[in-house]
Amino acid sequence: MATIQDVARHAAVSVSTVSNVLNGRADRMRAETLARVEAAIQALQFRPNKLAQQLKTGQTPLLGLLVPSMANPMYGFIAREIESFAQEGFGFRVLIGSTYREREKESAFFEDLLAQGVRRVIVISSLADERHFESAVEQGMVVVSYDRGATPGRRSRVAHVMPDNFEAARLATQHLIARGHRRLAFATVAGMTMSRSAKIDGFHAAAEAAGLRAQAQLLDGGPLNEYGDAVIAEVGRATALQIAERPERPSGIVALNDLMALGLMAGLREAGLRVPQDVSVVGIDGLFLSALSNPALTTVQLPIRAMARAMVQRVMKNPDELDATEREQVFTELRLVERESVAPPPGETARRAPGKKIEKTNP
Amino acid sequence: MATIQDVARHAAVSVSTVSNVLNGRADRMRAETLARVEAAIQALQFRPNKLAQQLKTGQTPLLGLLVPSMANPMYGFIAREIESFAQEGFGFRVLIGSTYREREKESAFFEDLLAQGVRRVIVISSLADERHFESAVEQGMVVVSYDRGATPGRRSRVAHVMPDNFEAARLATQHLIARGHRRLAFATVAGMTMSRSAKIDGFHAAAEAAGLRAQAQLLDGGPLNEYGDAVIAEVGRATALQIAERPERPSGIVALNDLMALGLMAGLREAGLRVPQDVSVVGIDGLFLSALSNPALTTVQLPIRAMARAMVQRVMKNPDELDATEREQVFTELRLVERESVAPPPGETARRAPGKKIEKTNP
Repeated sequence: MATIQDVARHAAVSVSTVSNVLNGRADRMRAETLARVEAAIQALQFRPNKLAQQLKTGQTPLLGLLVPSMANPMYGFIAREIESFAQEGFGFRVLIGSTYREREKESAFFEDLLAQGVRRVIVISSLADERHFESAVEQGMVVVSYDRGATPGRRSRVAHVMPDNFEAARLATQHLIARGHRRLAFATVAGMTMSRSAKIDGFHAAAEAAGLRAQAQLLDGGPLNEYGDAVIAEVGRATALQIAERPERPSGIVALNDLMALGLMAGLREAGLRVPQDVSVVGIDGLFLSALSNPALTTVQLPIRAMARAMVQRVMKNPDELDATEREQVFTELRLVERESVAPPPGETARRAPGKKIEKTNP
Repeated sequence: MATIQDVARHAAVSVSTVSNVLNGRADRMRAETLARVEAAIQALQFRPNKLAQQLKTGQTPLLGLLVPSMANPMYGFIAREIESFAQEGFGFRVLIGSTYREREKESAFFEDLLAQGVRRVIVISSLADERHFESAVEQGMVVVSYDRGATPGRRSRVAHVMPDNFEAARLATQHLIARGHRRLAFATVAGMTMSRSAKIDGFHAAAEAAGLRAQAQLLDGGPLNEYGDAVIAEVGRATALQIAERPERPSGIVALNDLMALGLMAGLREAGLRVPQDVSVVGIDGLFLSALSNPALTTVQLPIRAMARAMVQRVMKNPDELDATEREQVFTELRLVERESVAPPPGETARRAPGKKIEKTNP
């Protein structure tokens, strides 16, 4: 690639003359010199080095994006939306890192971003605390965090954008209750994050409101091996195989997200159970893939596009310019998309008639 | 963020003294001065600006990655593998761009990479020619292109890595033929790329070898609106709805890729047809999602991880160091994964007995 030195040599002028042309300081230059420099730039296909400009401004038109794994279609979708808003609205490109929710990998990614002059980062992490990137914020990094609020009791300069996870799980659970389900379960993975905890609360709130708190169980599918391709779906599948054998298995399950729901449905089928005739399943996310499943997955659609746009807008501002809403915004536009994976529970009338089983589980 | 000027001020030394410390030229410096500069660096949490270093070397530890869309789970998976090899093997981060197979978007991405000092790029494009990034190559960019060979008749400094697309489609088709299918179809989208064309050739070769060339049809689902989330799945779905009504519909379909196969299966189901009892479907790719579908998709597994590793290794080399194999390598480790989406064609014995229908379509 041609350098500014090459251009100067080619035009037989000094490097500072070329620099003057590049920086629009050519008004006192002889027309003939200007023409020679421009011809040299053209001939050598020299492009003004943005690196040098960034060195002056300390700004790089790159947006850092930290995701648990690009192989997860949900993050792929959010990443695509973020990229598209950043590119069209601000001319920024995306520097992406999969960090598998590991603190060390997240910290290393931040180190590299700082070293690259990247000043703006969107983080999808959900780790229990954010201290490992608060120090980047202190060094001038603008950080927007997805799917979690600020750590309670800590002042934070990190902006937060999240869906109403509580309400999403509540809606999903309520839908199962409205269809007659009493033995409810929420399928999750090991390890608590803010969004998981909010969903579990929403699940319990709906059960409680219907007087079903005692029958509402939490299914913990175990830890994620974050390096797998489809780990959360695999955890869903394993969970389904486990509960299939239980006599008191739930008749209606809310899954942590769509990918887990797809895994649950595959596992239930493997165990010889039919969805929705034997077990009903509701997801949360609204991935396009959930519309392709058989049965098509009933799910709570999150406002992904609106949240992606909001994150990009926030991250492009100076943190001091953000008002309270922008510093922490919960997106509440949720929509239950009814498809095929929910039906009334099996033998509901039969069980209800003698009125025994219900009394047994609700003493 | 602290600059070198801030450090100099804080330590009450000149900028060039700080620069000397940063560049290991402190041997003739007074110990007291060195200590003061180091203390200032510590106090201001100054980090040596990699931008400045890159400006000298012309190298940035960033790998450009151009994909049609990050929202497509297949590209998300390849991107994750590429990122992981680039990061662990070479300390490179990934600068990603979704370009929807549009020439202008691809060119713009290359412009930005050049301006950022990015010298190494992996391209997943499959556009009919590569001239729009050959010029980047001439300016010193190292480019590895996925899923296509060099444009015939053109010398290229772009390295190419691809699966054996011909053989993948041949294997899939042969599997249908072995199960007794005679009315075969290959489902694709509008627009020819090298990989699509190789797959279609493989499909026809298998049909030809079995004497079924006349019954082998191409189903063109129409153009992709690349901005959709699941466009190729949607095209698959639409294709299924169209063919469902035809009396002479195929009994066995090979889909361009797994995502299209998932869409086909959803569309067939919507049209009241059962997979595999009425229509058999085979995919190509081996996405984890295809194992979750109902019925689980029979597919040809491509060696994604090996190809991702090879692409990263090639792109980190100087193009002149590449031997012939490295310049263009076809990965042939394909594996037919038999699941549930293929069965013998319906009423095969019935149709064969009178021996009429077959004669009619094969005069």
